[in-house]
Amino acid sequence: MQIVIHQTDHTIGNFTQIYKYIENLTRSEDFQDNIHIFPETFLSGYPLQDLVLQKTFIRQYHELLQALRDLFAKIKLSDKTALLVGGLRYEFKDNADIPSNIYNVIYEVTKKSNFNDIYTKCLLPDYDIFDESKYYTPGSAPCIWSHAGCDFGLLICEDMWHSEQYAVNPLQMLMDEANGKELNGIINFSASPWNIDKEEKRIKRASEISRVFKTPFYYVNKVGAEDEIIFDGASFVVNETQVIAKAKSFKSDLMKVEIAKKSKIENLGVAPVGANSWESLFGPHIEKINGKMSLKKLSDDKLDAILGALNLGLQDYARKCGMNKFLVALSGGIDSALVLTLVKLFLKPGQEVEAIYMPSKFSASLSWEISDKLCKNLGIKLHNLPIKFLHSSVQNLFNDNLDPLEGLADENIQSRLRGSLLFARSNQTGAMVINTSNKSELAVGYSTLYGDSVGAISLLGDLYKSEVFALARHINKNFSDIIPVEVIERPPSAELRADQKDEDSLPPYETLDMILESYLSYRYDLPDLLNLGLNKTEVERVIKLILNSEYKRQQFCPILKLKDKSFGFGRRVPICKKVDFNLG
Amino acid sequence: MQIVIHQTDHTIGNFTQIYKYIENLTRSEDFQDNIHIFPETFLSGYPLQDLVLQKTFIRQYHELLQALRDLFAKIKLSDKTALLVGGLRYEFKDNADIPSNIYNVIYEVTKKSNFNDIYTKCLLPDYDIFDESKYYTPGSAPCIWSHAGCDFGLLICEDMWHSEQYAVNPLQMLMDEANGKELNGIINFSASPWNIDKEEKRIKRASEISRVFKTPFYYVNKVGAEDEIIFDGASFVVNETQVIAKAKSFKSDLMKVEIAKKSKIENLGVAPVGANSWESLFGPHIEKINGKMSLKKLSDDKLDAILGALNLGLQDYARKCGMNKFLVALSGGIDSALVLTLVKLFLKPGQEVEAIYMPSKFSASLSWEISDKLCKNLGIKLHNLPIKFLHSSVQNLFNDNLDPLEGLADENIQSRLRGSLLFARSNQTGAMVINTSNKSELAVGYSTLYGDSVGAISLLGDLYKSEVFALARHINKNFSDIIPVEVIERPPSAELRADQKDEDSLPPYETLDMILESYLSYRYDLPDLLNLGLNKTEVERVIKLILNSEYKRQQFCPILKLKDKSFGFGRRVPICKKVDFNLG
Repeated sequence: MQIVIHQTDHTIGNFTQIYKYIENLTRSEDFQDNIHIFPETFLSGYPLQDLVLQKTFIRQYHELLQALRDLFAKIKLSDKTALLVGGLRYEFKDNADIPSNIYNVIYEVTKKSNFNDIYTKCLLPDYDIFDESKYYTPGSAPCIWSHAGCDFGLLICEDMWHSEQYAVNPLQMLMDEANGKELNGIINFSASPWNIDKEEKRIKRASEISRVFKTPFYYVNKVGAEDEIIFDGASFVVNETQVIAKAKSFKSDLMKVEIAKKSKIENLGVAPVGANSWESLFGPHIEKINGKMSLKKLSDDKLDAILGALNLGLQDYARKCGMNKFLVALSGGIDSALVLTLVKLFLKPGQEVEAIYMPSKFSASLSWEISDKLCKNLGIKLHNLPIKFLHSSVQNLFNDNLDPLEGLADENIQSRLRGSLLFARSNQTGAMVINTSNKSELAVGYSTLYGDSVGAISLLGDLYKSEVFALARHINKNFSDIIPVEVIERPPSAELRADQKDEDSLPPYETLDMILESYLSYRYDLPDLLNLGLNKTEVERVIKLILNSEYKRQQFCPILKLKDKSFGFGRRVPICKKVDFNLG
Repeated sequence: MQIVIHQTDHTIGNFTQIYKYIENLTRSEDFQDNIHIFPETFLSGYPLQDLVLQKTFIRQYHELLQALRDLFAKIKLSDKTALLVGGLRYEFKDNADIPSNIYNVIYEVTKKSNFNDIYTKCLLPDYDIFDESKYYTPGSAPCIWSHAGCDFGLLICEDMWHSEQYAVNPLQMLMDEANGKELNGIINFSASPWNIDKEEKRIKRASEISRVFKTPFYYVNKVGAEDEIIFDGASFVVNETQVIAKAKSFKSDLMKVEIAKKSKIENLGVAPVGANSWESLFGPHIEKINGKMSLKKLSDDKLDAILGALNLGLQDYARKCGMNKFLVALSGGIDSALVLTLVKLFLKPGQEVEAIYMPSKFSASLSWEISDKLCKNLGIKLHNLPIKFLHSSVQNLFNDNLDPLEGLADENIQSRLRGSLLFARSNQTGAMVINTSNKSELAVGYSTLYGDSVGAISLLGDLYKSEVFALARHINKNFSDIIPVEVIERPPSAELRADQKDEDSLPPYETLDMILESYLSYRYDLPDLLNLGLNKTEVERVIKLILNSEYKRQQFCPILKLKDKSFGFGRRVPICKKVDFNLG
């Protein structure tokens, strides 16, 4: 008898696919005599948001449950065979229409049990992207699951992260329940979103719990991207300090692991307080480098993990939306060059990517040379669609009918004409436009709404400009300068007027990124930033830009989430507010 | 001694303004010897979302609290004078940076008390737009406030709406606490968002509670719009079944009311269960008209209230964003004609509105005539900015460099060119572009992303097309056909190809709106809709359109919320999902 960890990726609402996965499993040779464990909410998908309330979803979910019960009613399971499957349990009011309670549970399937729920998630996270209290009712009882002579303590995702933030302590409840008994291990069923620090935190916490119980910790995690949220899988088993098995990151996987011998559980004492995930939102990724506060540098390992995450994020979004063509607008700058390179590197058989370059009279010849060289390096056809004539047509239209286009109006129209042409091409070919904005420009609103900020999904929206450069250099190291070095070395420019440079309007990116990361973590106030040696005028200007550009971010596409604190669903700020209140 | 109800509207984060309001009050002749009551979270603003965690916000909020305490330390209050002010109370962890608990409280100011919190909100709503569990910690104790011989039971907003949905019952706690005592009334401090059914529900519930206690119910509500959310004020006092005082709707107001004599509270029994606000999300506004299920008709009173709400919503958004110019693109259709009319009707002294008409070769001459007539009726200058030439320039560009523009690509480019021109004008004049989409087209994605869907804020995004017509007719009744009747009578068309009509792609709006309202309420499944006598093919098509257009709605501007269930922050649905899961 082994534990089989099913690290799966299914589209939300694709109940047929989920049924088939289980049906196929029942026919596989590994099926009988093993314990099969599945991620949290395997049956329903996650995060569902309001779908969980929609009558159609509820009906189909229950049809799935019934179909699975019917399936197992016909199958003769051996004494040893078991499935532990994450799902939802609904309770309804009298009128049977409105769910009164929805629980996040583990269903058990054995010879004697056909989808009975045995454990309910106790800790419902509400920070950042999480809204679980909005939809779910927490459990309040621990579970030691006994099967074929084995005993396991069960936890669901956040339950392992007990901290002072929560009134209940499921880990302590499990420790108290286990006291005096013998366990073969702890199993945690997760749908745990990835970010660059998440995997090591999980293993550290699991190891901490394993050491307390002196028994292995089995961690099964969902894989796959759901809009902006990336689930990395990376399921693992840790025995005290040693990771004894590890599944793939960013890919579906199936992993068989031995069941450890029983350990006697006694004198456990007080549950160790977990690293508080909520608090990590307040921890800016900054550090002192050469005596100066800077954004924390991303290690090669982390850059590789980011590549894995972006790959899964893009590909799952495309697959789940039914798209297999991509379209990127090249400007001759680093962001679009990196995005095109990423899409090309991530391309699967049968998929295509196309690039368009749309120069204006302000576009340097270097911009064309870079774009041309990049596309040659990548083996991608580059379309040239100059906007000079269109731009002057618009200028004439305004001259003749309204007022002459000048300044910002004349800059932005170029960007918006490009956005329009880009989406015209997208309409022609059915290609998905990949956004090319980075986190720094998103933060300060240094982009044109409906112009360069357009797209279906953003790959770089959670990477500061200096991290965009780092990722480009990292790729060049591994792919022999596939991104022309000229684009890494030239000073960034929007090229919307003559001799424009980003640094005319913004602090140098190194400083800007440091201010942004500090401020966006919630934790740094103006006086704190000045204490770090930053310039008051500069800091005030940046904070004002952040506060004033909320309206642009609220119309932005989903951004693949790579950090603790990202723009998107997990960061919610009103548009209307007094903008200089932080500058007192 | 009277109760003075302060129905106020302040910009979030404008602490100076809030301080001055109180400072001015202390100098007013009504100040001494009265009880001044303020809305929930008067001191901090609401909804704050993540601002509540931002260190700068927290610091400045505490500076305000300190400044107010300093102010009252210097003022000699009479025995009778009191203020009850909604605000936040923060608790911090050891490191003093991260708030460990944030409470929504009522602060008391009297001769002996200088901003002491006396009551904490017990029920934290999490449905729809609400996320209060995400940020706040609930209270658990009732409060009977005694002052100068008077006694009042206190509640904050949702506390009065006890229902089965909540584990605690603050109304019951207050009833138990009051038992055997004498009360002068119940005071509810609210920041209660408006929707078309909300006011009557509030009064009904307050009256129900007043009848139980046999003492008046004082309801003080915030006024003002915060992005999409509109707070209507409409503070009131109800004594059993009689409304004895009522403040203005959609405007700041100050209302003095008498304090009732004491009532002996005894034998109250069990608290009446409230109308469950959460459940109302599941209640579609549909009814049987002439034997056929239809969208519920809006009465004249409700249409008037919608006008008040839209007026406040637009004006507060503009004021809080510092804008005083508006810009509307006219198409010759009903939506843009109504939007322009609304903006003009809402205009304040010193504000301006401008209209642009951007015809293509598919624009009927009637579209120009309607736009021209409307602008003459409204006294607005109409700019004509034909896109014919630009459109053919783009066609040539694609012909010469890529593939000829055809079909959808050729339709959408017209809409996007208009979006670009519109925002170029906005950049020129600093005017705010008002979006012209309606709820029906938003629901089915019958609009062009970055094209006709652009704008800073949407006035009609919570009104179905048939309600748009009803509102236009309502205005025409009161303003002698200010909107040309031709636009109400012509069949709706996007005019992006020859002889295009909305009904070529969509069911008649009457049917469409009925399906949309039913489905969007969560409560109607395909079989339910078929039971209502609707056509299966039609219903399936509409549901598919809703599910497939989520990506467009996620890039949409804030929509002024008029209904229980609206697109926007309160409706959260993943983009990636299997789209035909509802059609099983």
